[in-house]
Amino acid sequence: MKSPLETIRWQGEASGTLTLIDQTLLPLEIKELDCHDVESVWEAIKQLRVRGAPAIGIAAAYGLVLGLQDVAMKDSAEFMARLDELHAFLASSRPTAVNLFWALDRMRRRATQLASQPSGKVIHLALLEEARAIHDEDRQLCRAIGKHGSPLIAAGSGILTHCNAGGLATAEYGTALSIMFTCQDEGKPIHVFVDETRPLLQGARLTAFELVQRGIRATLICDSMAAQVMREGKVQAVIVGADRITANGDTANKIGTYSVATLAKAHGIPFYVAAPTTTFDLTLETGEGIPIEQRSGTEITHGFGRQTAPAGVEVYNPAFDVTPAELITGIVTERGVISPVTRDNVVALVAPALATP
Amino acid sequence: MKSPLETIRWQGEASGTLTLIDQTLLPLEIKELDCHDVESVWEAIKQLRVRGAPAIGIAAAYGLVLGLQDVAMKDSAEFMARLDELHAFLASSRPTAVNLFWALDRMRRRATQLASQPSGKVIHLALLEEARAIHDEDRQLCRAIGKHGSPLIAAGSGILTHCNAGGLATAEYGTALSIMFTCQDEGKPIHVFVDETRPLLQGARLTAFELVQRGIRATLICDSMAAQVMREGKVQAVIVGADRITANGDTANKIGTYSVATLAKAHGIPFYVAAPTTTFDLTLETGEGIPIEQRSGTEITHGFGRQTAPAGVEVYNPAFDVTPAELITGIVTERGVISPVTRDNVVALVAPALATP
Repeated sequence: MKSPLETIRWQGEASGTLTLIDQTLLPLEIKELDCHDVESVWEAIKQLRVRGAPAIGIAAAYGLVLGLQDVAMKDSAEFMARLDELHAFLASSRPTAVNLFWALDRMRRRATQLASQPSGKVIHLALLEEARAIHDEDRQLCRAIGKHGSPLIAAGSGILTHCNAGGLATAEYGTALSIMFTCQDEGKPIHVFVDETRPLLQGARLTAFELVQRGIRATLICDSMAAQVMREGKVQAVIVGADRITANGDTANKIGTYSVATLAKAHGIPFYVAAPTTTFDLTLETGEGIPIEQRSGTEITHGFGRQTAPAGVEVYNPAFDVTPAELITGIVTERGVISPVTRDNVVALVAPALATP
Repeated sequence: MKSPLETIRWQGEASGTLTLIDQTLLPLEIKELDCHDVESVWEAIKQLRVRGAPAIGIAAAYGLVLGLQDVAMKDSAEFMARLDELHAFLASSRPTAVNLFWALDRMRRRATQLASQPSGKVIHLALLEEARAIHDEDRQLCRAIGKHGSPLIAAGSGILTHCNAGGLATAEYGTALSIMFTCQDEGKPIHVFVDETRPLLQGARLTAFELVQRGIRATLICDSMAAQVMREGKVQAVIVGADRITANGDTANKIGTYSVATLAKAHGIPFYVAAPTTTFDLTLETGEGIPIEQRSGTEITHGFGRQTAPAGVEVYNPAFDVTPAELITGIVTERGVISPVTRDNVVALVAPALATP
């Protein structure tokens, strides 16, 4: 097995640099992008150079550290004022991923604890430690998700996944893919069917790439073929990631996830969501409250460097959809599996985790 | 309204040329392809320069005429022997579209009626007339499908369609799109949601093009978004074409159709197939007997002129799937609507039409 790529890496100390793999260039080019300022982190999130809810949260935390470098020597009032500006700025990069807000809020909480310090310097150092902690914890969360999810998968299973909820979307093992990597670590053979995930092909470009890299058998299909491979009996489970999960278990994830969940239900196939508890937003009761990012129509009409649709056609391009809890067999978290997916079960497992500072 | 494109055109008399719009270049380039021999017609069908079950049948009929040009002056035995060779050759271009075999068989039947003629010349002239008749009849079939289908659609409806079953797939008005064009002719407003239809984007390239050309409101979506627009209440009916329909009503059509049908059922939305009776294959009882064309994986991994998936990944690329009859609300033919879709109703409507020579 080749060593996993390092999706996100902080280089140096508080005056250091954030280095990201530019995921828009994968799988053909593995190129690192050095971010020296907060604007370039914002741009990297917006343009999906770094994507996946947990990875966005980690990148945003480091982005705050970057953006505060030039006020680290100012007094703490000025430092905290800048932090508020940067918090709002980074939060504007992508509206659906709750981990983004979770990470930014956690960083601000840490700073607020130290706001009585005279200078920004101590706060700045503490924020770098906090970002590193978020990063390290995510690694452990991912591993734990894999351990909790693997028992759900029988040896020899076909597993269908949509988009990329792998190491590239997180600190290391991923969420949905962590379950598959753990199956592999345990010697359990699996065969993964990878939805290509239009319009931006995260499945074809990123998930297929991660699976091939690790030597897990992977078959790429178009999104429209998922129903057919289910009908042919090739799929025993669906596992996807999540961008935000509400108190009742409704789950926002990459557009097309709701389609896959509906098809899985029609074929009697269990449908699992894999996500750390940081992906839950208990302030929202149901998925109706989740804002859905609308992206440019050119992602569909000019998706591959050339125009593939006529001028004058309207385009609808929601980046996410919401899968209602009743279509979800279980949600695999670092603290265990929520199943059946009810409000009571969600709150019982998640609330204690989110209460921890 | 702009004048419709002429998808297929025979120029000249028996020694003439077949001219096709090269649909692989649409929507950016409207370029005609002149076929002077049967090999170029075979290539055009294989490479989807001409596609859509009825259009393939028409092109193959003219292809036979082209291929027989150089034996028109030979004796009829030699002429008929060549015809058998060409019949087999053209039938090998695409295995799923039944209209291809239907048209080739009809051409051979006509030739057989005249096989006692001493020279091939009279037979050749009769075959050109037969090909023209197939072409003309398809125009009328399409118009009749539109008339029978339009009453199924309420004014103001959202209609979702998959792939291209329009004028480009037929002689003129199309099958699924004929219903939409007829709604327009009758002044009934509609809004069409167009699945882009990966991997070859016939929806984005061809259906969106035809709708925009005619001034019908069209919104392009990725295939994975169909479930979401249904959930949002934007779709009141699904209408698709067909490549082959068996005696029980099971329908082979472009990959992804089965997915859309399953999703329509889950959302309580009627799902209609529009096809002429020539698309029915009553020799097959159910869809299990339909051969499904498997196409090259590079259509998915290199679909847009550049590689979008890693080397080493397996690919599954069936060109069609089969929608079981129980998911189909009605099949709209030139002879009326089959609903409910049962073996008895299919045979009662279709058998008399196919019995006509």
